[in-house]
Amino acid sequence: MPHEDRIERALRASLAPTLQAGHPPKLAAAMQHAVFPGGARIRPKLTLAVAMACGEDDPALSDGVAAAIELLHCASLVHDDLPCFDAAETRRGRPSVHRAFGERLAVLAGDALIVAAFEVLGGSARRHLSRLPVLLRTVCHGVGMPMGIVAGQAWESEPQISLSDYQQAKTGALFAAATMAGAQAAGADGAPWRALGEQLGQTYQVADDIRDVMLDASALGKPGGQDVALGRPSTARELGLEGALAEFHRLVQATLLTVPVCPGASQFRQLIRHEANRLVPQQLMERVAAIA
Amino acid sequence: MPHEDRIERALRASLAPTLQAGHPPKLAAAMQHAVFPGGARIRPKLTLAVAMACGEDDPALSDGVAAAIELLHCASLVHDDLPCFDAAETRRGRPSVHRAFGERLAVLAGDALIVAAFEVLGGSARRHLSRLPVLLRTVCHGVGMPMGIVAGQAWESEPQISLSDYQQAKTGALFAAATMAGAQAAGADGAPWRALGEQLGQTYQVADDIRDVMLDASALGKPGGQDVALGRPSTARELGLEGALAEFHRLVQATLLTVPVCPGASQFRQLIRHEANRLVPQQLMERVAAIA
Repeated sequence: MPHEDRIERALRASLAPTLQAGHPPKLAAAMQHAVFPGGARIRPKLTLAVAMACGEDDPALSDGVAAAIELLHCASLVHDDLPCFDAAETRRGRPSVHRAFGERLAVLAGDALIVAAFEVLGGSARRHLSRLPVLLRTVCHGVGMPMGIVAGQAWESEPQISLSDYQQAKTGALFAAATMAGAQAAGADGAPWRALGEQLGQTYQVADDIRDVMLDASALGKPGGQDVALGRPSTARELGLEGALAEFHRLVQATLLTVPVCPGASQFRQLIRHEANRLVPQQLMERVAAIA
Repeated sequence: MPHEDRIERALRASLAPTLQAGHPPKLAAAMQHAVFPGGARIRPKLTLAVAMACGEDDPALSDGVAAAIELLHCASLVHDDLPCFDAAETRRGRPSVHRAFGERLAVLAGDALIVAAFEVLGGSARRHLSRLPVLLRTVCHGVGMPMGIVAGQAWESEPQISLSDYQQAKTGALFAAATMAGAQAAGADGAPWRALGEQLGQTYQVADDIRDVMLDASALGKPGGQDVALGRPSTARELGLEGALAEFHRLVQATLLTVPVCPGASQFRQLIRHEANRLVPQQLMERVAAIA
C-alpha cells in the first residue's frame, strides 16, 4: 500500500474512537476538520520512509507512530491559528478551525488531538511493547517543553530570541521526532536520524518564510505576509529574499548529505529533492532572480 | 512518606525536565504557576489510595500515574479559565494563568502540561512495562474524546445537554481514571474501581455547584456565581439549593457503599467522609437549613 494511503487510513482509524456513541458532535467535527483533508503530510511520510529504510518489521506500529506525529502537527496548527496567536481565517484553503467552529471548540479540538495522538501511540505497540517508552519519549520531546514545538511557539513571547533556536524548536523538533520515531518503530536506534530530521525541519521553515513573503493567500491556503505583519522572526526578514533562497539551497544540499548510510538512502534523497521543489518551485526561484 | 509529600515530589520531578537549559522562561514559569501551589490534589490522592488498597508494589509507577493525572487536571483548569471559556481572573486565590502570563502562554502551558503528563507516565513504567498500555488507555479515556473531560467541556457548546452525561464527562471521567489507574499501577484490574471514581466525580461536581452558589470568591479562590452567570448546567440551578444538598448527601452515601472489598476499604471510606466535609462543611449545611 502506498505510504499516502497508509497514513490516511491510520489517521482515520485513530479518530474512529472519537466518533463512538455519546460523543459531543461539534467537537468531533472540529477534530475531523483539523485533520481531513490534510496538507502534504510530510512528517508522517518521513516516519514511514525512515521505518522502511531501517527494515520495518511492524507496519502497525509505524502507522500508529506516523498518525500520532501528524495528529500532533494538526493540533499545533489549530492552536497556532487561534485569535490570540495568528488569528488566521484560513488554513489549507478552508476556514481555520476557530473560524468554522468557534474559539472554544478550537482550543478543545487541539487538546483532544494531542490526547488522541498518545492514545494511538499506546495502542500501536502491542507486538513490540519494549519500543513504547522510547517512542513516547521521542514524541514528547518533539512537541513539549523544553525544546519541542510548544517551546518554539513560546519563544515568540520572549523579548530575546535566537532565530536558529526558535526555528529548531518550532519546526525542527517535530521533524526530528518524525525521523527518529520512524527508526525506533522499526526497532532501530533513533539517534543517527536526529540530524536529518532537524535539518529537514530547518529547510522547511526557511521555505515557509520564503513562501510567506512570495505567495499570496490563494497559493498558500492561508494568509500570506503573516511573519512581517506579526513581527515574527523570519529568515526572509533577516537575510532578505535572495539571502533566504541561498540559505534554502545550502540547507537542501546539507540535508542530502545527512542521510545515514542505509538501503533506502537513494529513495530518501529523492524524497528530499521532490519536497524541496514542491516547497520552493523553480519558477519561484526565477521570479526572485528577475526581481534582484 | 505521606501521600501529600509523594504527590508534590512527583509533580516537581515531572516538571524538572521543562526547566532544562534552553527552555523559554515564561512558559516554564506559567507551567509552574499552574501546578504549584496546588489545590486539594484529590485526584492523585485517590490514585495513591487505590494503589495502596490494591497492594502497591511499584511506588515509582503509582507516583508517576498520580502526577500525570494531576498535570492533566491542571492543564484543564488553565484552558477552562481562558477568556473564551470562563474568563476567570483568579484560581486558587491567585491570578489565573492567562491573567498572569497572557492568553498565548496559557494556551501553550495547557498544551505543554498535557504532553508532560504523558512523558511522566511513559517514564514511570520501567519496572512494569506491561502495565503501560492499559494505563495510557485509562488516562486517555479520562481526558480525551469521546467521554473524557475535553468532551465534557465540549458539551457546553451543544444546544442539548444531559446534565448527568455532561457531569460524568466533565468531572467523573478523570476521577474514574484516577481510581482505575491507581489499581492498574499496582497490577490489579481497574474495572472494579470505575464506579467508585465516577460516583466520587459526580459527588464532587454537585459539591462544586453548591459552593459556586453559596460561597464568595475569597472562600472559593476563584470567581463565584459562574454557573448562573455563564448559563452552565448546574445541579444547584436545576434542583435548587436544598435539592442539590440532598443530592450531595445521597451521593456521598452511595459512594461509601461503592468501595470495593479490599484491605484498605475502611481507610477509603474515611478519606471520602473527610473530603465530603471539606467540600460542603457542616456550617454550610446549617446555613441552607436556616434560609429554607
